[in-house]
Amino acid sequence: MTLTLDQARTIISTTRAKGREMGLKPLSVVVLDSGGHVLAFEREDGAAPGRFAIAQGKAYGAVMLGMAGRAQMARAEAQAYFMAAVNGVYGGQVVPVPGGVLLRKGGVVVGAIGVTGDTSDNDADAALAGAASAGLDAEA
Amino acid sequence: MTLTLDQARTIISTTRAKGREMGLKPLSVVVLDSGGHVLAFEREDGAAPGRFAIAQGKAYGAVMLGMAGRAQMARAEAQAYFMAAVNGVYGGQVVPVPGGVLLRKGGVVVGAIGVTGDTSDNDADAALAGAASAGLDAEA
Amino acid sequence: MTLTLDQARTIISTTRAKGREMGLKPLSVVVLDSGGHVLAFEREDGAAPGRFAIAQGKAYGAVMLGMAGRAQMARAEAQAYFMAAVNGVYGGQVVPVPGGVLLRKGGVVVGAIGVTGDTSDNDADAALAGAASAGLDAEA
Amino acid sequence: MTLTLDQARTIISTTRAKGREMGLKPLSVVVLDSGGHVLAFEREDGAAPGRFAIAQGKAYGAVMLGMAGRAQMARAEAQAYFMAAVNGVYGGQVVPVPGGVLLRKGGVVVGAIGVTGDTSDNDADAALAGAASAGLDAEA
Repeated sequence: MTLTLDQARTIISTTRAKGREMGLKPLSVVVLDSGGHVLAFEREDGAAPGRFAIAQGKAYGAVMLGMAGRAQMARAEAQAYFMAAVNGVYGGQVVPVPGGVLLRKGGVVVGAIGVTGDTSDNDADAALAGAASAGLDAEA
Repeated sequence: MTLTLDQARTIISTTRAKGREMGLKPLSVVVLDSGGHVLAFEREDGAAPGRFAIAQGKAYGAVMLGMAGRAQMARAEAQAYFMAAVNGVYGGQVVPVPGGVLLRKGGVVVGAIGVTGDTSDNDADAALAGAASAGLDAEA
Repeated sequence: MTLTLDQARTIISTTRAKGREMGLKPLSVVVLDSGGHVLAFEREDGAAPGRFAIAQGKAYGAVMLGMAGRAQMARAEAQAYFMAAVNGVYGGQVVPVPGGVLLRKGGVVVGAIGVTGDTSDNDADAALAGAASAGLDAEA
Repeated sequence: MTLTLDQARTIISTTRAKGREMGLKPLSVVVLDSGGHVLAFEREDGAAPGRFAIAQGKAYGAVMLGMAGRAQMARAEAQAYFMAAVNGVYGGQVVPVPGGVLLRKGGVVVGAIGVTGDTSDNDADAALAGAASAGLDAEA
């Protein structure tokens, strides 16, 4: 199964709506496909200009390692030099904290969401709402 | 004036609709702000996975140089080493062909659109429709 | 459809066998998935040590642009600065000559083969034999 | 002595068979030559797309430093800034954990194996089986 642009747009609009409902700061939301490539992105008004790279970095690490943000953070806390090395081999594109959410369908990874703007845990909660709206299984 | 996300979304949806009306191949459309940073992006189903970087490269050069795609292409054809050098100082992020469209309001650059997927000229035409839909002056 | 490792191995062994049948120099053969990521690679004895990057570069450009090696070469010959710019946005990973062969199933790109070692045209011919052995449509 | 492609293929197939026998997650296995350059690689179905870079990074550090994964990890734990500096000079290509296994013949380094997919220790155990199958001395 390949994520469609319509699914990515649904994920982004639901993630943003969840952010408004939770009273979060302006969010930036990216959806990557199963190869880690950008399908769609939106940055809400008031967010800092560099948010695309943070959102992408959360989602990119999830896809490339097959490991969502919380698992990446646990590994970084247990073995910081390992996640630093991983970032080296991936060109510095990995941001190993919650907000990077793996998307699965039938057990297979079909992409990832990356959310940034509020606390990492709130970012992840908003992303989970987005994943559910597209009928996908999610791992935060 | 600062481009809003709603404006960027309008630009993208109109650019895509224009592409469908013109019968173009699947398009990828990015909108950057006046600092060259990503506001929103969509890649249509069937587009190659690497299209984000091409779209961004068209728009990024436009913002950073204050020079739209056609002018960049003319300069590249007249003086290839100059555009190669420009790419050096901008980290290789500039794609100097049509499809990078500068956005102005009251004479001031407020951002750029980058479109890729069909011929460079068709990409630029679709982007111009997008710019008009947001009430902005455009230079292709 | 996702390329399997068994398909990639079949492609590589058939490409290599074709190279021997054609009397080519030692070949290096990579198979990438639909996201441009390495599935399998083999470098024949006697090939120069740097051949992995050349093989990968031929296949990577094909996947990322949705454009096989011959089309990339035509574009590079018509508009050299464009392919140079494309290489910039893809981190210098694109080698735009024959030997990068797109793989499709039912019209959808499922990956690419990259072959290097002999002339670019011979590299491409060997890759086409590999693609056929896995029951895939190929564009050289 | 120079590693042959046939040896590299034997190493990979035995490493993979050992992984299946141990019930490990899908493995990705690379074999580098004595210059740190890729000879052969396979990524098993179900492995995350970014596994090539991790496997290569484990083996590359082993060859370049003449120090296998466990020794690299010990050094990283004792002196993290040293391994960070090493990564700087090697372009960020070193992943200093078990799974990078040095290959020697008659005391001389002839290459390295890099394995990733399960725990680092299990990755290393599978690689040792691969090394033995090619009649080489191994250091994990």
